[in-house]
Amino acid sequence: MVWVRARVATSRKQGKALCFLQLRQSMHTAQAVVFAKEGELVGFAATLPRESVVDVFGEVTLPAEAVASCSQSAVRRLYCVSRAMPELPLQLEDAARSDEQLAADPSLTRVNQDVRLNHRVIDLRTAANQGIFRLQTRGAPLGPARLLSPLGFTEIHSPKMIGTASEGGADVFRVERDAYLAQSPQLYKQMALMADLDRVFEVAPVFRSENSLTHRHGTEHMTEFVGLDMEMTFFEHYHEVLDMLDRTFCAVFDGLNQSHQEELAAARFTRSETDERARARIRERLDARGPESLAEHADTEDMGTEDEKLLGEIVAELHGQDYYIIDKFPAAVRPFYTMPDPTDPRWSNSYDIFIRGEEVTSGAQRVHDPQMLLDCAKEKGVDLSPIYSYVDSFKYGAMPHAGGGIGLERVVMLFLGLPNIRKSSMFPRDPKRLNP
Amino acid sequence: MVWVRARVATSRKQGKALCFLQLRQSMHTAQAVVFAKEGELVGFAATLPRESVVDVFGEVTLPAEAVASCSQSAVRRLYCVSRAMPELPLQLEDAARSDEQLAADPSLTRVNQDVRLNHRVIDLRTAANQGIFRLQTRGAPLGPARLLSPLGFTEIHSPKMIGTASEGGADVFRVERDAYLAQSPQLYKQMALMADLDRVFEVAPVFRSENSLTHRHGTEHMTEFVGLDMEMTFFEHYHEVLDMLDRTFCAVFDGLNQSHQEELAAARFTRSETDERARARIRERLDARGPESLAEHADTEDMGTEDEKLLGEIVAELHGQDYYIIDKFPAAVRPFYTMPDPTDPRWSNSYDIFIRGEEVTSGAQRVHDPQMLLDCAKEKGVDLSPIYSYVDSFKYGAMPHAGGGIGLERVVMLFLGLPNIRKSSMFPRDPKRLNP
Repeated sequence: MVWVRARVATSRKQGKALCFLQLRQSMHTAQAVVFAKEGELVGFAATLPRESVVDVFGEVTLPAEAVASCSQSAVRRLYCVSRAMPELPLQLEDAARSDEQLAADPSLTRVNQDVRLNHRVIDLRTAANQGIFRLQTRGAPLGPARLLSPLGFTEIHSPKMIGTASEGGADVFRVERDAYLAQSPQLYKQMALMADLDRVFEVAPVFRSENSLTHRHGTEHMTEFVGLDMEMTFFEHYHEVLDMLDRTFCAVFDGLNQSHQEELAAARFTRSETDERARARIRERLDARGPESLAEHADTEDMGTEDEKLLGEIVAELHGQDYYIIDKFPAAVRPFYTMPDPTDPRWSNSYDIFIRGEEVTSGAQRVHDPQMLLDCAKEKGVDLSPIYSYVDSFKYGAMPHAGGGIGLERVVMLFLGLPNIRKSSMFPRDPKRLNP
Repeated sequence: MVWVRARVATSRKQGKALCFLQLRQSMHTAQAVVFAKEGELVGFAATLPRESVVDVFGEVTLPAEAVASCSQSAVRRLYCVSRAMPELPLQLEDAARSDEQLAADPSLTRVNQDVRLNHRVIDLRTAANQGIFRLQTRGAPLGPARLLSPLGFTEIHSPKMIGTASEGGADVFRVERDAYLAQSPQLYKQMALMADLDRVFEVAPVFRSENSLTHRHGTEHMTEFVGLDMEMTFFEHYHEVLDMLDRTFCAVFDGLNQSHQEELAAARFTRSETDERARARIRERLDARGPESLAEHADTEDMGTEDEKLLGEIVAELHGQDYYIIDKFPAAVRPFYTMPDPTDPRWSNSYDIFIRGEEVTSGAQRVHDPQMLLDCAKEKGVDLSPIYSYVDSFKYGAMPHAGGGIGLERVVMLFLGLPNIRKSSMFPRDPKRLNP
């Protein structure tokens, strides 16, 4: 007997005592049977719209390969995590049909390319699309990073904003009135999760215009930097995601400290100790007193840069640690898509990771309920109507999820103790610099 | 006795019979001694400007760690591969000084941040910068791709051009009059090589505006796609780079075919055979007849899309191969930075890699002589004055180099036999689509 989180592919009631559920996880589907002896469960199961996300407890196994026929499993408990809207803009079974099937039966519904792209999050859930996009990562161990690194290649990140049309003027993209450069992949990585990719990351340039430069979460006068972004669904608590971020950071730092002495020495870095127990103690302590200590400022105020640096010094002094995490920031200082703390909406399920008193990662659990998202946006004065696709993506059954964004240049700068962020950017961009 | 390619760090003549050369490869330096018995060699060695690239034959070993003192090696032969301009905009030894050194002696020359960034290619050659940027890749096996992939993460590439300011309007970058979106990382990856990074690759978005869409090397109506770009120095012949590209492609295809059956099946891919000998035969044959067969068109004409597809069918029929390489394209149809064939300037040292009659990679040896670069640009009517940093980067000693650019979506589309490039882009962008 196991707990399984999956989507409802189909739900078919048979009399009062029986309901056949077809569940799906990425490319895999399984039959599950809900019996009447579970009280209201059959009626409840029958009302679940397709694509809703459910937690199922019972004899459920999702097979390694898709099953067409019935492999019935008894469901003992059934919760709806996220209810899809009853009328989806397109049906997955329509989008999933092969050309052969469509050719054999002209009466079958076809889904044209434009409809697919307009509602891409659903379209991406077909087995074919799951294959395409998962393959790209399954191929990652065979990709350039893995294959070329041992051959002496250095991965670089060159700027996407340039001062002139470098290769002739014919096809340069001087961005026109209707397009903008992405400030982060935030909404898209969430949409990818909503397309059942479960866990995603991206390494890519992000852009911030000059107005952002005085903001403390800004990028220290860089208008273009490399974002390491990750986002994942979680099962019980957003600390699953925070732990993942923590483990990843520590693994990278420990690995660099152990095996790259020469480069570290050349970059004049003084390595710092990392101690698992010390990390845990600090996290506990900050978890415990975080909101209270912040409350000494004011509910709606963020910590100032000076206070952050002071905290960094205190942590270093008390614990010999340059690296620590602060959890539960005030809701008012975080973006509209941040999940409020369910026990007290003045706080939020959000966190920052610090090195030497400076933030390197900002992350949070995200709102996955479309109405709550609209309410949060309204409260913060954000108009979501231009990005209806994003809001809509939570209407087709949404997984609880959290993630974070890491600025590559900031991490490198702070890990190496470099004095200026431009030192860790190969060809830095700021309001006054588009060259070389 | 070995051949070594290195930079001239310093050159100091002592009388008529002796010249002390200090050579440098990335962070490593070594002393080499040129004796008079080599004829004119001492006088020649003494005239070499700092940062020139030389080939040295003799008892030369570049130590694993920097040597301050003299570990003399006898030089028997010495060639200048690329002569740096005699007066560099900044001296590496100035740029390399530590804060401690500068504090101890106020009379020492300082290099301020702006000068460093204006002449970034030289600045990047300091041991500190080499440490910073090489570290980022040495850390790649510890990076997100390696660490997160086994945990079930999918790497995604989300669009950088979006239809609205997604996270509030304050700091979105509506690109202004003086900035453009990069059409490729071409010039920057070459500049990275000129900064002695030797071999670089990048995976990042590139942008092409609507005017490019009728061009055969275009991206089939995609205005934003993911570029897999690589560039490397070579020692004797640009086919070293072509072989590297070939081996990488085959390794990825073979690996995907062997270990990712499920995703391939889900994406409805018919796998094709790859046979080392067949590949070699085709390459020989195309190498041999390439220019002649192209000459049947006209010197200045590229192959048409229809001819390319026909050639793809012929190759498949004759050799059972979907994958092949064409070498030596006419110079007139390639960009200004393409190296002409030294035996006949109507042709160029350029190549395309094809899958099923469609180009997936375009690459070439690049011009590394600044005067030749200016001449080639003039001939093609390209004004290089706005990108003087690029031209200048070859004036400080330039390594022969070649590379290529791969469109991720095109490779996925053609490898999987997908009917439309939008199938292999998660959130595709074209002139009519900025949503979702």
